[in-house]
Amino acid sequence: MSTDSLRTSTGRPLTSRGRQTRERIVTAAAALMLDIGVSGTTMEDVRDRAGVSSSQIYHYFSDKDELVRAVIAHQDETIVGTHEEVFAHLDSLDGLRRWCDGIVDYQRLGGCSGGCPLGSLGAQVAETDPDARAAVARALARWERAIRRGYDAMRDRGVFEDSVDTASLAVATLAALQGGLLMAQVQRDTAPLRASLDAVVHRAELLATR
Amino acid sequence: MSTDSLRTSTGRPLTSRGRQTRERIVTAAAALMLDIGVSGTTMEDVRDRAGVSSSQIYHYFSDKDELVRAVIAHQDETIVGTHEEVFAHLDSLDGLRRWCDGIVDYQRLGGCSGGCPLGSLGAQVAETDPDARAAVARALARWERAIRRGYDAMRDRGVFEDSVDTASLAVATLAALQGGLLMAQVQRDTAPLRASLDAVVHRAELLATR
Repeated sequence: MSTDSLRTSTGRPLTSRGRQTRERIVTAAAALMLDIGVSGTTMEDVRDRAGVSSSQIYHYFSDKDELVRAVIAHQDETIVGTHEEVFAHLDSLDGLRRWCDGIVDYQRLGGCSGGCPLGSLGAQVAETDPDARAAVARALARWERAIRRGYDAMRDRGVFEDSVDTASLAVATLAALQGGLLMAQVQRDTAPLRASLDAVVHRAELLATR
Repeated sequence: MSTDSLRTSTGRPLTSRGRQTRERIVTAAAALMLDIGVSGTTMEDVRDRAGVSSSQIYHYFSDKDELVRAVIAHQDETIVGTHEEVFAHLDSLDGLRRWCDGIVDYQRLGGCSGGCPLGSLGAQVAETDPDARAAVARALARWERAIRRGYDAMRDRGVFEDSVDTASLAVATLAALQGGLLMAQVQRDTAPLRASLDAVVHRAELLATR
């Protein structure tokens, strides 16, 4: 989302300082929702963590649903935006391996808590908030396209044959990442994430060497 | 869990009729938690759906946390128990394909809502209820072992070489299933689940034909 389109809860455009305060609130809410879940996070928790007043928080967000959607947009920008950068420069099996290693290392550092900042939000809102579910669905679709760009580059470089379905490969890669992150979160162990991402790399290797 | 070990919230063993009432409460709670999530489900919702009184529900469950753990045990028995049966008789690539097709068909029938009855519980409780998280982790480990049994049977029949790591294959299969179910739930579309499970089958085929 362009920062120019950001508004207060009564529809006014934000000043530069207003954007900073809003950003602090959203970052605090995102961290809390990753730590204790969407339902466990109250507006009061967010207010305290962001160090703002109640009137300030309601100046930017009319209710918690609006804040949840701002957190989804924030994770879309952060997580999917980062992957767009990464996969724009990824065009080899080695690059794919390094990406997998980086994800496993990052989860290990965080004690495997929280799961995927976007996927875990999706699981929590899917049956209770259709608008939030649709926003996560759009972010996942953007994520698929980002990953596909890396597979397309590999195909263009001749790593894969032209007949390889890079779109399906990208969807399966994202699914393997989501499932691996969920299992790592629940089992508090990077092993399932490692096995899941190794399967992605292994299949790419088998496709490349046929 | 053996039904003999079931108790009231004050520790008394259950009669046959008591076990039936308890089962009705747990089934109602499981359906509600799949429909509207763990946090959205109240003890009053469960009472009304099960058609029991408040004193009856608290006769079996001292609080919601205890009910959540009973639902996890119920899904463990239902979902993982079913998979133990299925994979005890699965020893071929055709069997693996049929299993995948069955899962996709089942999700299509349900409009892709709810996600995995066990994995979605895991995502919801992982950061808020350590005992519930550990119970889901144990169920996932049991599920891995069930799937592995099918891959072991394939290896024993010569579908795979002896060097194939069936344990990792099983973990990656479960992760692909979990990630595919989560994406299908969020995107309300079986396509990501299909792509994720096709990747599992495809990798098994590539391993088998090397």
